[in-house]
Amino acid sequence: MLDQLLAPDVKSLLEEGKFEDILDFFKESHPTEIAEVLTGLKPEEALEILRHFDDQTFADVFRELPTAFQVDTSELLDKKDLAKLIMQLDPDDRVDLLKAIPQERFESVMPILAQRERENIKQLAQYAEGTAGSIMTTQYIALNQDLTVREALERIRLEGSEAKTVYTIFAVDKDRKLKGTVSLGELILAAPSKKLSEIMDSQVQSVYALNDREDAVYKFSRYDLVALPVVDSDEVLVGIITHDDVIDVIEQERTEDIERFMAITGKHENTAYLHTSIWTHFKHRVGWLIILAVMGLISGAVLQSFQETLTSLMILAFYMPMLADTGGNTGSQSATVIVRALALKEIMPGDAFKVLWKELRVALLLGLVLAALAFIRVLFTGNHVPMPGTINILDIGTAIAIALGIQVVSATIIGALLPLGAAALGADPALIASPALTTIVDITGLLIYFTTARMILHI
Amino acid sequence: MLDQLLAPDVKSLLEEGKFEDILDFFKESHPTEIAEVLTGLKPEEALEILRHFDDQTFADVFRELPTAFQVDTSELLDKKDLAKLIMQLDPDDRVDLLKAIPQERFESVMPILAQRERENIKQLAQYAEGTAGSIMTTQYIALNQDLTVREALERIRLEGSEAKTVYTIFAVDKDRKLKGTVSLGELILAAPSKKLSEIMDSQVQSVYALNDREDAVYKFSRYDLVALPVVDSDEVLVGIITHDDVIDVIEQERTEDIERFMAITGKHENTAYLHTSIWTHFKHRVGWLIILAVMGLISGAVLQSFQETLTSLMILAFYMPMLADTGGNTGSQSATVIVRALALKEIMPGDAFKVLWKELRVALLLGLVLAALAFIRVLFTGNHVPMPGTINILDIGTAIAIALGIQVVSATIIGALLPLGAAALGADPALIASPALTTIVDITGLLIYFTTARMILHI
Repeated sequence: MLDQLLAPDVKSLLEEGKFEDILDFFKESHPTEIAEVLTGLKPEEALEILRHFDDQTFADVFRELPTAFQVDTSELLDKKDLAKLIMQLDPDDRVDLLKAIPQERFESVMPILAQRERENIKQLAQYAEGTAGSIMTTQYIALNQDLTVREALERIRLEGSEAKTVYTIFAVDKDRKLKGTVSLGELILAAPSKKLSEIMDSQVQSVYALNDREDAVYKFSRYDLVALPVVDSDEVLVGIITHDDVIDVIEQERTEDIERFMAITGKHENTAYLHTSIWTHFKHRVGWLIILAVMGLISGAVLQSFQETLTSLMILAFYMPMLADTGGNTGSQSATVIVRALALKEIMPGDAFKVLWKELRVALLLGLVLAALAFIRVLFTGNHVPMPGTINILDIGTAIAIALGIQVVSATIIGALLPLGAAALGADPALIASPALTTIVDITGLLIYFTTARMILHI
Repeated sequence: MLDQLLAPDVKSLLEEGKFEDILDFFKESHPTEIAEVLTGLKPEEALEILRHFDDQTFADVFRELPTAFQVDTSELLDKKDLAKLIMQLDPDDRVDLLKAIPQERFESVMPILAQRERENIKQLAQYAEGTAGSIMTTQYIALNQDLTVREALERIRLEGSEAKTVYTIFAVDKDRKLKGTVSLGELILAAPSKKLSEIMDSQVQSVYALNDREDAVYKFSRYDLVALPVVDSDEVLVGIITHDDVIDVIEQERTEDIERFMAITGKHENTAYLHTSIWTHFKHRVGWLIILAVMGLISGAVLQSFQETLTSLMILAFYMPMLADTGGNTGSQSATVIVRALALKEIMPGDAFKVLWKELRVALLLGLVLAALAFIRVLFTGNHVPMPGTINILDIGTAIAIALGIQVVSATIIGALLPLGAAALGADPALIASPALTTIVDITGLLIYFTTARMILHI
């Protein structure tokens, strides 16, 4: 929101070339806030302002810009300036940027970076998006467990300024295998001659670099951590994940979860809604819509096959929307509950039987209430509709109520089964978007409805 | 999941009275893990085991139990033991428990607590659920800004063990107004004779106790904090929120968000899916289902009013499900995108015009694609359906395509308008559950469909 409020002011200062005033304007601002104002400008304008900051502020503000804006701005830099910026960025932010810029630009800038940064980038860039390794940083303090407290404090004073957290020290053996953690508080209170291995907490939580980043989130919320060490398959320490990065991941996943569940594809980067193009919005939505529209046509075909039933008893058509909607709603409810329970590891795919038994009983209660409601409604208002003489309104009410009850139970079970099935296959349970579920239970609902009506009303 | 794997083992040890073995079994476990196993037992069994731990472990494990299980277990304690447990718990956990137990029990235990705890409880309990005050703790280090670094370090050594974080020190003036923060790292590196006011960071982020807890979450993710000070309306420091509590809040809100959006009411406490009763699951779902079923009947009434059109041209019925589904899907998509953008503060209600203009253009693109799809589909398959001689399949295809296009645009706009409207009124944008939206655009969709068909086909 800041971008819309302040960008015009900054813009006019920029046009008048009053850079001193701009720097003054931003003097008291947090880098996040400066970045927010800059996104309201054109990349070339933002860059002009960034160039007037010192290198550190340049990097601090730059890392808070949305990725797309970072790429656009970095495109305007020559190779040397880009290299300077890259060296200034934190290892994790640096790799995020390098992954986003065009491949040839990446290759052109790599040779002019310092050896140390180059290797660091290669190490971090190997982890695919979505892994724990992709959100880790290499700025941490790892010390040999045989060091004394005095030696350790000495090292922290030397290395501390480069680390992202000095509050947790990671103790490793000579092969860099993770052995334990020591908090800065413990270190300060401990006798100077003790070894780290004597005072460290050896029951340390860690995550494998190739695991899903959701695993890291889970450990953070379960064990109340400030930093989580990341190890490779040999238990060798390769990085750490810090609490602030985890909060960002949770917020991103929260948005992606709900969007995926509502049939919207694509990643929710830190590109804000208004900065995303019409075309991107369109692309993220159109895929599922086409699939679902085609599936909707199956509902039409089912309807067509029951054409005679429908023509002879038009009243059935009037309760179709309620039946379809209620199926979609109950199915979406159970799918939502199960998807979240799986995400929070409250249940596992192996609990399928217990879950289905629970959902069945909930569905029977819901089905009973809704069927009663439908029955009453049909009795009260069904009289105005012309019907064949052989069928009375009580029969119709019964048929609709029974069909609705069956629909509620089957939709609830389908809604629970689909995410459980996806999880059992190792896929994301939220893969089955709620609109897809709605469309599926529309089809099964029509089949249930007309079959029940035919059987009970003998038409 | 641990509860199901290990609870049987623990249970059999318990039956044999082998408490030594149980303690041994848990020796290497994190309190979170012990709590997870205990929830697989009956409260009286869990309590029997808890009583064998030392007081500190008892409290550490107890705080990790789900609230409902905590209440059940605490019911089995006599007044004196309950008071002992309460004194042992952290201030924030303590208040959560006291808020959950029956009022008369709360009143009976309060008089036997120490004066200091009693006042602390009264102070924390005044903040309603959902406020920043309700998730804060009072275990922090606040020091007068006029203290020297040497004096400050002395005080930290004395008070540090009781604080939840010693890494951020809060500097206050003589009226306890928050003036700045100093990190432990800075304190250690600073000259011992300097005053806190000289080295503190005075641009400190804080949150008002009565504000929504989501505001605290927002500040955490925006400013990468470890701890966030909470102040009252006079800027007086009253507590702090720590990063681990914020992660718990985010996970809870994430679940509540998505559940509310899928028409499930109620709070998602830390009661896990399988531990929630059928009756509670039922209650959380049935409310919206009844409302939506009644709304579904309005669709039926609309259908009924177009009965003649439908009877004379049955082919229209076969495309009804696709039209209804597509409207629900496009509406849900735009509602989801807008709800998230509002939650992430990417847009404000004041941006309504820009948002609607953007959604309109996205919707036109989507409508075009889907209308073309429908038109082709009608042409290819419509020939098998009996029709009045005056109407040809091209006209019908045109009518259905136009109706679908209008439906996509109107559903998208309605989907964007509802959350924007809710936000403008100060309500939660996610209040408009997606199923409710689906049902609304079902009704508007049928009106659009039959009106368009009548106008184009002159029936």
